[in-house]
Amino acid sequence: MHLQSLLGIDLTIIQAPMAGVQGSALAVAVSNAGGLGSLPGAMLSLETLRQELTALQAQTSKPYNVNFFCHQPPVPDAARESAWRALLALYYAEFGIDANTIPAGPQRVPFDADTAELLRAFQPAVVSFHFGLPVPDLLAEVRSWGTKVLSSATTVAEARWLEAHGVDAIIAQGLEAGGHRGMFLSDDLTTQVGTFALLPQIVAAVRLPVIAAGGIADGRGVAAATALGAAGVQVGTAYMLCPEATTSAPHRAALQSEAARHTALTNLFTGRPARGIVNRLMRELGPINPAAPVFPLAGSALAPLRARAEGVGSGDFSPLWAGQNASGCKAVSAAELTRALGRG
Amino acid sequence: MHLQSLLGIDLTIIQAPMAGVQGSALAVAVSNAGGLGSLPGAMLSLETLRQELTALQAQTSKPYNVNFFCHQPPVPDAARESAWRALLALYYAEFGIDANTIPAGPQRVPFDADTAELLRAFQPAVVSFHFGLPVPDLLAEVRSWGTKVLSSATTVAEARWLEAHGVDAIIAQGLEAGGHRGMFLSDDLTTQVGTFALLPQIVAAVRLPVIAAGGIADGRGVAAATALGAAGVQVGTAYMLCPEATTSAPHRAALQSEAARHTALTNLFTGRPARGIVNRLMRELGPINPAAPVFPLAGSALAPLRARAEGVGSGDFSPLWAGQNASGCKAVSAAELTRALGRG
Repeated sequence: MHLQSLLGIDLTIIQAPMAGVQGSALAVAVSNAGGLGSLPGAMLSLETLRQELTALQAQTSKPYNVNFFCHQPPVPDAARESAWRALLALYYAEFGIDANTIPAGPQRVPFDADTAELLRAFQPAVVSFHFGLPVPDLLAEVRSWGTKVLSSATTVAEARWLEAHGVDAIIAQGLEAGGHRGMFLSDDLTTQVGTFALLPQIVAAVRLPVIAAGGIADGRGVAAATALGAAGVQVGTAYMLCPEATTSAPHRAALQSEAARHTALTNLFTGRPARGIVNRLMRELGPINPAAPVFPLAGSALAPLRARAEGVGSGDFSPLWAGQNASGCKAVSAAELTRALGRG
Repeated sequence: MHLQSLLGIDLTIIQAPMAGVQGSALAVAVSNAGGLGSLPGAMLSLETLRQELTALQAQTSKPYNVNFFCHQPPVPDAARESAWRALLALYYAEFGIDANTIPAGPQRVPFDADTAELLRAFQPAVVSFHFGLPVPDLLAEVRSWGTKVLSSATTVAEARWLEAHGVDAIIAQGLEAGGHRGMFLSDDLTTQVGTFALLPQIVAAVRLPVIAAGGIADGRGVAAATALGAAGVQVGTAYMLCPEATTSAPHRAALQSEAARHTALTNLFTGRPARGIVNRLMRELGPINPAAPVFPLAGSALAPLRARAEGVGSGDFSPLWAGQNASGCKAVSAAELTRALGRG
């Protein structure tokens, strides 16, 4: 089945869900332009999620996607947390922060029964998952609404696993992609494959429609992905300068500078590898540091540093999520960008 | 200028030079089929290079490419070499090898005046370099013959550097590519970018024709690269099963197995990061190990292990160079493969 009819969209352009830099406004704009807008649910409280879904429901009659994470909730480790804070001590000193006053902070929670219960009232056309899939009962419930389910594969093995476990289409997340690697069958970063190599191999390995993600910035990228067998594309980074995104000022500045040429996978901000523009923290601790607590616990200790730095316009301690191709970032409306990608 | 007229070829398909798995026979076949065949010169003695060039000259009237490395010759470090051999001691014991009898072995030498002197008699239509460019005098000499010069860029910065220092076209080597990373302005692996992201950014940054490399396995890959602005493509891995290649039996077997799905950048075999299929040595020492001597010295200590293992059909200690997309590997003639790629 074509992706258009499967998902009920006019343009096979999926706006990538980007927790922390967008809410319902971006999703509404993309869906109303004929693409598939996405609401990132991973960092929202149930109350905020309800508000955002209500806003989506009110502002578009088109299909939209809601995205959730499917990680195992972590077991907090006090010794590891204090070692991590010790590593950050010189930064706390620099900003005059008392490390003992830092709260645990809100965390990303995996998709669970409470979320499914809330979602049932909205029954979105599409739900996408990252880091695999929820347990079978929860997945079956989502599918029982007629909701179409997507998830990301970073290897051929993950694509085959997703097909066997019941999704409607597979996102082939190439190594160029910004934000968290969706990897869930391995934590070995050498297994991660560039879009140009991953996409055709997943297309050949599964029968489901495959959505290309990673490095797609403009219409030429869409055409190239189509040539490699993609049924559609998922684009994130290019949307980050749109007025409907909530991207911070330092993040927008970095995306528009030469700094955006150099991204790296880093575990510093959450505990899981995710791609962002290299900044001071990544340079000084190394982008991958074994001291970072497990996902998603690493972020709490950084929160006050990030807040202080952003307060003076600096992204030194912020996750500046971005893919390896920021050349498509333009401060145009999400509708305009969606239509331009759709012409690809 | 179109790449066809610049290089004098009918098809904009460049067979990637692959030291260790091919000689003049593969280059002859590709050039005679209308692509650009390449002879890897980096591991050849002057005498063998002369023989291979003579063979090329005799068997094709079409343009061909000769490839050389441009690294700084290493300063041997006895302490580091003995630490490296100590790390390999358990393997020497397993195979009953006396580590004191291992010779330094032949090494990759950079392009130098003697090579240029020899090359002058042949004046190949194209010379390509890896790891930057030779010193200005040597580069000027090569160009004085009317020879067109190519070199690989792994970042936008390297592409701009090559344009400023005088090449005729730039190979955009995406992270998916097999063999040695051509990186020369940085040794930070996080700077390396996937083809889907690298290619359009280099195309936008330089005025020269750009040749895409990395992950291109078939006609769809050629079409995708063209959509992203490539003037031509360089393909290596797909040629490795051709009868004209000298790829070893264990290497051919690995390329045709599921093992080819998992490659990694490794410095174990030469001292510089290069992409190959993950094998026993890479798993057990880690693909990147700081104990490996600097390029190209790491290989000597491995030579007897490799020879013994290959003697019993094993690639456990061999560099199984391959890109991230081995799906194009077929045991067909190089002419047939070149024509199929050319139809892309």
